[in-house]
Amino acid sequence: MISKEMYELGAKRSTIRELFEYGKQQSLIVGKENVFDFSIGNPTVPAPACVKEAMLELLETCKSDEIHSYTSAQGDFEVRKGLADYMNNTYNCQLKADNFYMTCGAAASLCIALKALTADASDEFIIIAPYFPEYQVFIANMGAQVVIVPPDTDNFQIQMDLLEKAITKNTKGIIINSPNNPSGVVYSEETLKAIGSLLRRKSEEYKKPLYLISDEPYREIVYDGVHAPYVPAFYDNTIICYSYSKSLSLPGERIGYILIPDDVENSKEVYTAVCGAGRALGYVCAPSLFQKVILKCQGKTSDVALYDINRKMLYDKLTDMGYQCVRPQGAFYLFVKALEKDAVNFCENAKKFNLLIVPADDFGCPGYVRISYCVDPDMIKRSFEAFQKLRDLYK
Amino acid sequence: MISKEMYELGAKRSTIRELFEYGKQQSLIVGKENVFDFSIGNPTVPAPACVKEAMLELLETCKSDEIHSYTSAQGDFEVRKGLADYMNNTYNCQLKADNFYMTCGAAASLCIALKALTADASDEFIIIAPYFPEYQVFIANMGAQVVIVPPDTDNFQIQMDLLEKAITKNTKGIIINSPNNPSGVVYSEETLKAIGSLLRRKSEEYKKPLYLISDEPYREIVYDGVHAPYVPAFYDNTIICYSYSKSLSLPGERIGYILIPDDVENSKEVYTAVCGAGRALGYVCAPSLFQKVILKCQGKTSDVALYDINRKMLYDKLTDMGYQCVRPQGAFYLFVKALEKDAVNFCENAKKFNLLIVPADDFGCPGYVRISYCVDPDMIKRSFEAFQKLRDLYK
Repeated sequence: MISKEMYELGAKRSTIRELFEYGKQQSLIVGKENVFDFSIGNPTVPAPACVKEAMLELLETCKSDEIHSYTSAQGDFEVRKGLADYMNNTYNCQLKADNFYMTCGAAASLCIALKALTADASDEFIIIAPYFPEYQVFIANMGAQVVIVPPDTDNFQIQMDLLEKAITKNTKGIIINSPNNPSGVVYSEETLKAIGSLLRRKSEEYKKPLYLISDEPYREIVYDGVHAPYVPAFYDNTIICYSYSKSLSLPGERIGYILIPDDVENSKEVYTAVCGAGRALGYVCAPSLFQKVILKCQGKTSDVALYDINRKMLYDKLTDMGYQCVRPQGAFYLFVKALEKDAVNFCENAKKFNLLIVPADDFGCPGYVRISYCVDPDMIKRSFEAFQKLRDLYK
Repeated sequence: MISKEMYELGAKRSTIRELFEYGKQQSLIVGKENVFDFSIGNPTVPAPACVKEAMLELLETCKSDEIHSYTSAQGDFEVRKGLADYMNNTYNCQLKADNFYMTCGAAASLCIALKALTADASDEFIIIAPYFPEYQVFIANMGAQVVIVPPDTDNFQIQMDLLEKAITKNTKGIIINSPNNPSGVVYSEETLKAIGSLLRRKSEEYKKPLYLISDEPYREIVYDGVHAPYVPAFYDNTIICYSYSKSLSLPGERIGYILIPDDVENSKEVYTAVCGAGRALGYVCAPSLFQKVILKCQGKTSDVALYDINRKMLYDKLTDMGYQCVRPQGAFYLFVKALEKDAVNFCENAKKFNLLIVPADDFGCPGYVRISYCVDPDMIKRSFEAFQKLRDLYK
């Protein structure tokens, strides 16, 4: 009598959430210090000082209605102006306040963008494995079809021939996510150039715009001097979905934006449809205080060096032990090849040593596991024995 | 090529927003003090002191991840437990933490509840004129049909015979809103008893649950010693959609909840579907800091006495002038009969005197106008001459 789909979506716990809950139970039995939980991607490095400073300043200097009132649906004009200035300085682009639409975080950005672009139930959005599992939920619920491109397990870039095959007359857009969750890989300029050139060719072939949705919550979480390139520089029809959840360690505050540059085909119409979609989905405006907070924190991030310590420690030790893994240059995940074909079974075996790692089947990449290293570095050190035991099990 | 519906929804400015923008333009021409803008329902009374105090305390005493991390999708357990305790003390009910699902405000509450309940495109939700215009947007976009019950223009309660006629085998639920926007009326116990008895009879007739969705953002904005009754006491299948936007003057912060008491038919399944719907629409969790803030402000409200001063001043003066208006006992709106049949034209005439009032056509109640009195009391005093001139125009 109620919605069967919504019931099932609510009843089905994600593998990650299951593991996390298992870890809490297991801690009660064997002690917290003996459980090595690498399941969840919740930032552990604190928000930078500017976040608290901005809040205290706003609370001191502003009247209640100046910080807590509805903003316009697109977001506060001064905030959007400030974001445009920051992006223009950082990426040498020419953005204006009206290219930005403030949202309640990355999931909201994606849902609103997908809803705005989907004209028909036959519309297809392509996602590239390994991908964030909720992409499938969002695309399906915004009324479109999911098309999956298999992973490039050599480098975790994109197999362009497979992406080309996936594009049909029904393709409305492609979602990319770099730095990538779960692989930790940053798409190279070469990859982005190839995407741009393929999409231009295909847009011409099908005589319709193909939108590239760039989901970038990890844009600033990068290592080894690598920088995540500005994607619209490679392809005009690019819509950026951003969130401050990871860069400022504010995942609970639900603050982000959709960026629709003027070079996007029918950019004004797309922007208007984004406003309509936000309204249709019940997003009245992005949280008002945090709109002002993130404005005051432009260019700041949580201390990425702390994640980097974890990254190096885990990568070096695990590859030393003989685990196979691409060296991650962004986000806070290590993407490791399971020591057997069945990663689900491999992760079950890991649980014997109280090692909680996530099989990548739900990420569209069977045979691999995701290890979140946004954790206490001491836990990493304590976990090495368990990783060694798991390795030995397969000798 | 993009969504036509979303484009149109984004392009169509609401009458209220149009008037508000017109007011800003007109202020530049005739001076801000000579424009009397009664268009928008944005709380003017500041948030109570507990809001700032709670934020400062949380910032002082908590670590970053204790206030800014993802909460569970339903909301922080301690917060939901606190809300249950507060409601049990206030309304003598038996609620538990797991009856509450925290949301990003009233619009999110409604969209998520509607999405969870809608099983089929033929499902109908009944709304009662005068109603908040966005109800139509939310119902349609969550995939159901809108059915409208005409207004009771004598008392702005509900014409029960018309509500009965509106219920069909396709009815899934009824949305009520008391204290009401735009009428300011609080539904009497008699009205709620009649709704309960009608819905029980009709549920039996159609052998299916009929859900009563009680949208209550104005629950605490009441006057003359009136109290908004606890709706589930009158009908078991009641789902409450609440928001702190008005009671704590926090409309920009997007914080509220859905309450599904155990007495709701299939309450566990409905709650699970609500979790699924929140996920499907991209609502990851309600803003984490403000979840904790509102917990510390349970039982507190903005200073309603300040709205009451405005209410009395406007009601007394306007009825003295000969305007017809039901005496509002809640919210912050006066619902006045236009002095001609065409309220749109009446409001155009009002603009001649720089008086900005909203025709209620979009609220499903032609021939009436909504006057928001969450405004500066001095503006009200200055506006009386304009109201008199408008009156004289129709003599």
